[in-house]
Amino acid sequence: MEFSSKLIEKAVNEMSQLPGIGKRTALRLVLHLLKQPKDQTVFLSQALVAMRQDIKYCGSCHNISDSILCEICANNNRNHQLICVVEDIRDVMAIENTGQFRGIYHVLGGKISPIDGVGPSQLNINSLVEKVKSGTVQEIIFALSSTMEGDTTNFYIYKQIAESEIIISTIARGISVGDELEYADEVTLGRSILQRIPFEKGFKNN
Amino acid sequence: MEFSSKLIEKAVNEMSQLPGIGKRTALRLVLHLLKQPKDQTVFLSQALVAMRQDIKYCGSCHNISDSILCEICANNNRNHQLICVVEDIRDVMAIENTGQFRGIYHVLGGKISPIDGVGPSQLNINSLVEKVKSGTVQEIIFALSSTMEGDTTNFYIYKQIAESEIIISTIARGISVGDELEYADEVTLGRSILQRIPFEKGFKNN
Ligand SMILES: [Zn+2]
Ligand SMILES: [Zn+2]
Repeated sequence: MEFSSKLIEKAVNEMSQLPGIGKRTALRLVLHLLKQPKDQTVFLSQALVAMRQDIKYCGSCHNISDSILCEICANNNRNHQLICVVEDIRDVMAIENTGQFRGIYHVLGGKISPIDGVGPSQLNINSLVEKVKSGTVQEIIFALSSTMEGDTTNFYIYKQIAESEIIISTIARGISVGDELEYADEVTLGRSILQRIPFEKGFKNN
Repeated sequence: MEFSSKLIEKAVNEMSQLPGIGKRTALRLVLHLLKQPKDQTVFLSQALVAMRQDIKYCGSCHNISDSILCEICANNNRNHQLICVVEDIRDVMAIENTGQFRGIYHVLGGKISPIDGVGPSQLNINSLVEKVKSGTVQEIIFALSSTMEGDTTNFYIYKQIAESEIIISTIARGISVGDELEYADEVTLGRSILQRIPFEKGFKNN
């Protein structure tokens, strides 16, 4: 693509680094911004930079939060002995939306994926294992998507906590294998939390 | 959508104001930025703001340009008596890509669309009519997409210049009716420039 303006070219190049945004889509978005008041571009840019610079993570569950403890971890009406292990904030939002879960979360921040260069040390796994070993946890529920990476991550964590006395379960597979959690409908997702099964059983069935 | 962080919420809200970007996609993009180095977000924001603040338009053809005259208008090897009328920079880029056109352009900046509240006065139509009346133009080629809005715009301009002595043509319709110019393949688009027909003829055939 050849541009008649370096300003456009640079904006398109930066925009097209976002996943799923090709150069054509980037140009369409950039031309849209040109037709809108300047404020819109300024507000968008400010919001992105503020988010990226000032983002904080809950000191307990690692979910994105504006305070030291997220609202869920700070809520004494939630069951803090029941921990649902998820990949990221989208999964927390999806499960909260069902209204079926009264425990707390542990946000790993991704899945183990050798191809993408993501190893266990880059994820929030140690703090989960420590929590379990501290004896304050009764049950953990694995709620990662049932992909190769999800299963690998589940199993990696499972090996480290298998000897503890806690219940280890995994959400019921009402959700199609390979589907992302966040796109499941609320009823199916809610039911899969209620009908969770012992981890070993889910693993053997696979 | 309920967010655990106002920073995320604000970034998602701003991002989802872009056309074709829903809240879910916006959240996916925003979470991607969080996983990348801070610089990427800063560079993206700076590029967007710089573009929006400092963008210039060619004083002759109204195409986006970093100088007073765009490179095409400043090129004496181009035929300045042959003007191709297009909607925006994407059409200029698409036609330039074919290598078939040696004239110059006139960028309207949109199409007449009462539904979207775009009237003739918001488009660069007057300067085109003046150019034609100044007697320096031999031929103009309409290359707007053949939608209702495109046809309306063509006809609005045509009425104002019909009495002048110039040739008024329209690109050959090798391109499917309703298709956007920028998505046409180079061969089809190049041929439609070479095989342009008198405007009246194209209008009757429609
Ligand atoms: Zn928390
Ligand atoms: Zn120009």
